[in-house]
Order: sequence, then structure tokens, then C-alpha cells
Amino acid sequence: MAFLDVDNPIVTLTTDFGDRDNYVGIVKGIISRVNSRVRLIDITNNIPPFNIPAAYYQLLTAFRSFPEGTIHLAVVDPGVGTERRAIAIETKDYFFVGPDNGIFSFLKKSDIKNTVELNSRKYFSTNIPATFHGRDLFGPAAGLLSQGVAIEELGNPVKKLTKIVQPACRRIKGGLSGKVIYIDRFGNLVSSIREKDIGGRKGIVKYADERIGFLKKTFGEAAPGRLLGYINSFGYLEIGVNRGSAENHFTASYGDKIQILFASP
Amino acid sequence: MAFLDVDNPIVTLTTDFGDRDNYVGIVKGIISRVNSRVRLIDITNNIPPFNIPAAYYQLLTAFRSFPEGTIHLAVVDPGVGTERRAIAIETKDYFFVGPDNGIFSFLKKSDIKNTVELNSRKYFSTNIPATFHGRDLFGPAAGLLSQGVAIEELGNPVKKLTKIVQPACRRIKGGLSGKVIYIDRFGNLVSSIREKDIGGRKGIVKYADERIGFLKKTFGEAAPGRLLGYINSFGYLEIGVNRGSAENHFTASYGDKIQILFASP
Amino acid sequence: MAFLDVDNPIVTLTTDFGDRDNYVGIVKGIISRVNSRVRLIDITNNIPPFNIPAAYYQLLTAFRSFPEGTIHLAVVDPGVGTERRAIAIETKDYFFVGPDNGIFSFLKKSDIKNTVELNSRKYFSTNIPATFHGRDLFGPAAGLLSQGVAIEELGNPVKKLTKIVQPACRRIKGGLSGKVIYIDRFGNLVSSIREKDIGGRKGIVKYADERIGFLKKTFGEAAPGRLLGYINSFGYLEIGVNRGSAENHFTASYGDKIQILFASP
Repeated sequence: MAFLDVDNPIVTLTTDFGDRDNYVGIVKGIISRVNSRVRLIDITNNIPPFNIPAAYYQLLTAFRSFPEGTIHLAVVDPGVGTERRAIAIETKDYFFVGPDNGIFSFLKKSDIKNTVELNSRKYFSTNIPATFHGRDLFGPAAGLLSQGVAIEELGNPVKKLTKIVQPACRRIKGGLSGKVIYIDRFGNLVSSIREKDIGGRKGIVKYADERIGFLKKTFGEAAPGRLLGYINSFGYLEIGVNRGSAENHFTASYGDKIQILFASP
Repeated sequence: MAFLDVDNPIVTLTTDFGDRDNYVGIVKGIISRVNSRVRLIDITNNIPPFNIPAAYYQLLTAFRSFPEGTIHLAVVDPGVGTERRAIAIETKDYFFVGPDNGIFSFLKKSDIKNTVELNSRKYFSTNIPATFHGRDLFGPAAGLLSQGVAIEELGNPVKKLTKIVQPACRRIKGGLSGKVIYIDRFGNLVSSIREKDIGGRKGIVKYADERIGFLKKTFGEAAPGRLLGYINSFGYLEIGVNRGSAENHFTASYGDKIQILFASP
Repeated sequence: MAFLDVDNPIVTLTTDFGDRDNYVGIVKGIISRVNSRVRLIDITNNIPPFNIPAAYYQLLTAFRSFPEGTIHLAVVDPGVGTERRAIAIETKDYFFVGPDNGIFSFLKKSDIKNTVELNSRKYFSTNIPATFHGRDLFGPAAGLLSQGVAIEELGNPVKKLTKIVQPACRRIKGGLSGKVIYIDRFGNLVSSIREKDIGGRKGIVKYADERIGFLKKTFGEAAPGRLLGYINSFGYLEIGVNRGSAENHFTASYGDKIQILFASP
């Protein structure tokens, strides 16, 4: 069971609410109203609107950096107001709260202790407006968990999480083929090819039909302004430009093709 | 009187300081220097520069989400260094600190317990530089309130707050006519027409001369990429695009006309 | 020695990580994992990528606003993975953690009590990946300092900090000549000319070859939409537009020339 430090609980936020409006502040206010001891930390609120796979990648690569017992609230929710379920999950080490739309589907079944639908009559109104569940449902649920309320009290058990289809990493002749799954503020292009897929083999990195060169270890190995392929700090093959932007260089988009072709032995 | 939890005080920020520079961080540092127990929560720092009505709307729709005793600091202050007063307000439930330029004029007279000008010689220098009152005046005032200093100690009583003229919601033949008062990061267009003005009547929503269709309850009722009008989660009539941007669709601006025409009974 | 409030330690962040991705959240998670009592305050995470002088200016003008004992973490690190040292500094009042690339070189030698390289075998792995030292090295170091671990325990003493060359303020015939060292979100242009260089003399401010007019005290002294030169709240000569943007007006860039020509006595 996730150990929660009730004197010092942490709730993180991963949303597409942006930082222009008061949406994130309102959710934080509501959580503080349920439990004023909560420490609130943004993972990011700038997920591209409605982009569930981007939220999946951002949360997957961040959630383990937090202390045991942290409650991860994630709201990227194109289906708000439709039939998608609102859920809370307890794993060995953490809690997760958000819509059941695949955003948490990186969690291994064996790590999950409990999943519930947020439908407890005791805690949640049956008449919640359809537009802002972060404020009216997910925020309060996170606040309750941070107080030590048992997850089972928040609603009925859920057996099976909704999965999302992540862009694949496919074997091709002499290498691997993936896609751009995330573009960061530096214009680095994260691919769906993982270090463990490469397994230590030497290889030439390609973006679309352009050869970038052999995998490098650090940005410093490329001259300023030059492209390079490397394993990012989360274990994914990424293409960047030393002190520049690969996104701008290629006018790149989500879904673009990235490959690695292994050198003959 | 607003009940303040001195072990766990919360100060919120609503400013046009943006998130590019160190201005917000400096204000938070100053508040922490006065009271290191303060919990700081951004409502938003991305109010369009000098846009008092936008700040009014963002604060109005957020302030009640916070625990009793929360101190709401709001600095959108085109008149910094001129004769506008610097004030603090205590209501039944909250405190407010900022310039007296209309930003707080949503507060009902009957809810206000106390308003003072921040001119106490004990706490504030008479020689404050004219450019950064968030750092030199409003931040320290918020810090003092969070320590439990009585508002009366911060300066002389103020009788009448400065009002702003908000874009109206007018009755027209067969309906209501309002204006765009806020545009959020999703490109949703918030109008000055409120749910209570509509009073449950059925009606066709219009942007300028274009008919959008009948009021919907949720984004899911419109196909992806389609326009819809709906009551937002704060009770305002809003126009959006399901998984898209009404701002981009119309190249919309603050002040544009939005109407609702009631169906004949 | 910097007095640290171990019950209520503050760690600030000044980075070029931006607010689009989870990088800042991950660093905060790691710090919280070392010490869950830490209060985290962003100075700014929107330093232009790799722009060490901009980070220098933003940190220099902010760090003294925080309580004694605050730990200032700064990561603008184009040399990550190269031979540049990772350091921690203790001054009379504060701690600083980051790369030794000039970012802290505003600190006076006489204020510095201790500087160490972050190379303690006890605390840091010798095998840290080359791409994300904020997560793997600087964050943990800040967390350790916030617990009261003595700076000497973090590694070997460092004798001499790397300096950066800041754009100069030169004397010219009848005045002073400087450069744009920072552009803020309002489009205000900060120059390298300081109030103390001007020494109270009256003078005409110029951007490139255009005369702006005499130094003003406040934005309100210029009509809306008009240019003005003034001393900003940090003591630097700055050019702005009342309720507008000098950056847009001039299509200005970092390094552009700003001058002040003194009036004949």
C-alpha cells in the first residue's frame, strides 16, 4: 500500500489547462479547501490540448521522481461530460486521480492495488456540471486521499482500465522504426524507440529520410547548431540540435518517422 | 470576520507579471521573508497586460474556491506610480490586496467588513519607488495579513472603492446581447451574458452575425471541430469548438458581439 | 554563515527548462523526495534557452528578496555533460547550487564563505547520465542542503569561480553607452547602464540612433503608447512604452545599443 505522509502530503498536477487562465489555481484552491496541508507541485499544465498520449508520456517519465504516497492528479479530458469514468488508482507507491481514458495505462497490472470509480454518494454529488471535473470531482478526490481517506471509500471497484494505443516501435530490416511521441520546449523530438529496444547496438539515427549520424552520448559531442540523436534522460531515442531546435530545423510534428539503422557487425 | 489559519495561511496571486521574468518570484520571496509559513498559489500571472476587466473576471470566478482566510493578492496596475490608492479589503471570508482600480469591484458592499489604504507609517515607507509596488507594498501587506496583523493597522479607512464598467448584457428584441469579456487558452470566448440572465429559456447563440445553434450542455454534444454555445462552469454563456478553438475560427477579440435569441414559446 | 530554517526551508528555481514539459516538476519531485518539508518557489523557468547572461541578471535581481538561508538552484547549462564543474556556494546569507559557468559570478568574493564541487562519493554517483543534471545532481544537492547537511560534505573545495563577461557600460563623449541585457514580457528593454553610473545627472535616453527623451520617474509620465526611459526597480536604465511594448516598437534584440547623453550643466 502506498505510504502517505499525512503531515506533508503532495499532490501533483498534469493537465492541459495551460497557464493563461485561472483553471489550475481553482483546482489548487479546492484541494486546499479539503486539506490545507497539501503541498501542490505542477508536473506540467501545458500538455497540448486533448493530447492524451503526450500526457501519458509526461506523467510516465515524471511520477517516480516524487516521494512515496504522492497523489498524482492528471486531467486531460476530451471526454468530459460523456460516459468515460472518473477514477482513482492506488499502486504500491502512489495514488492517481483522473479520467479513465488511457492516461494512466502505463501502470502495470501487478503494481495496481486498487482502482475505484469516483461515484461515492457520500463524497460526490450526482449532479456535477459537465464542464470542469478538475474542480468539481478530481480535485476534491485528491484532497480526500491526501487526508488519508481510504480509496475504497471513494466509490465502486473498477476491474479494467481503458488502454491507449501508443505509437509503436517496429522492427524493420536492419533496424527499428518509431514515431515522434513528444516535442519539448527546446524542440527536441522524442521518439517511441526505447534504449532497451536498441539494446546497446551501434546505429545510425534517421529523421524521415535524413541521416542524422551515430548515436551520441551528450549534446556537447555535436557542434553548436548541429543535429544529433541520443538516448534522453528517460531512456527514449531523441533527436535534437546542440543549442538549437530540431523541431524548427525539420518543421517537425507529432507522429513523424524516426528510425535507427544498426551498423553491420 | 475572515478566519485566518495562521499556521497555514494561503496567499494567492493574480497578476499580469507573466511567467517569463522574475517578478512573480520576487513578490513570493518578499512575502516569504515577512512570513515563511505562507503557502503561495498562483491563480494566474498571465492576465493580458493592463487588462483590468480580464483580471476582474479571473479573480471573481476563482476566489471562492479557496479556504476561508485566504489572502488574494491582485496586481494589474497600469496606474502604478500615479495617484491611484493601494488598498487592502477584508470581507466575511477573505482578504484582498492590490491597487484600487476596480479590480475588486465585484465585491458586494454588504460583504465588505473593512477597507484600508496601505499608508501606515509603521509598516510602509513613504518613499516607495514608483515601478514595482508588488514587491515594495502589496507583497509586504499580504505577508503582514498572513501573520495575523489586523487590517486596521495597515492604514486609514477607505469609504468607497473605485468601480469598473464591465461590458453589459443588454436586452434586445427577442433576446440578449453581450460582448466577449475573456478568451481562454482553449480559444473559448466568454461573454458577458450570464446563466441567470437567460433564466432557463431556450435560445439560439450567435457570434457577430453567425448562428451557432441552440445552447448545449457539454462539448461532447458537438462533433469534433464544430462550434457550440454553452454555459461555462462559472455561469457565463461561452462559445467554443469541440477539440478546437473558437478564437482561431473567428479570429475573435475582446469586445466582440455575442447574442442569444430566444425561441418563441 | 547562512542561517537555515530547517523546519521551513525554501529552494528557488531559476532555469531555462520552460513550463511546457515535466522537467521542472521532476526536479521538484526529486528535491521533495530528499526533503518533503521544502517549500519550492520558481524565480523563473523561462530563461531564454542557454542564455547565461539573462539567467545572471534574473537571479542577481531576485535572490536578495528571499529569506536568509534560502537555497537558490540555477540550471542554465549549455555545457551539461562536458567538463564544466557542478558546484554549491555558501554566502553570508544564502546557498547557490548549479553549474560553474558564470551564472553566479555576480557574487562578491568577500561574501562567499565556501564553494565546493559536487563530487562527494557519499552523496553522488560517479556515473550520472549526461543530460539531466537538474534531476540527477543539482536537485539532490539542494535537497541535502535544505536538510542541514554541511556544504563541505558535498565535495571538494573550489578556489575560483568561472566568470562571465557581461555587456559593458562604457563612457562616451557626453554620456554613457550600454546594451540590451534583458527583455521582459512587457517588451521593456533593460540596458547595462546602471543608476549608479548615471549618478543623478540629467540626460537624454537613446535607443540606437533614436532619441527617447529625458529620464522619467514613472510610466504615468508618458502618454499611453509613448516611449520612455527610466530607472527600473532594480536600478538599471530601461526603455519601455506606457501600456505597450518597446520590444515590438523597435523589433529590438539582446545586445542592441542604448545610450544616455547628459545635458550640459
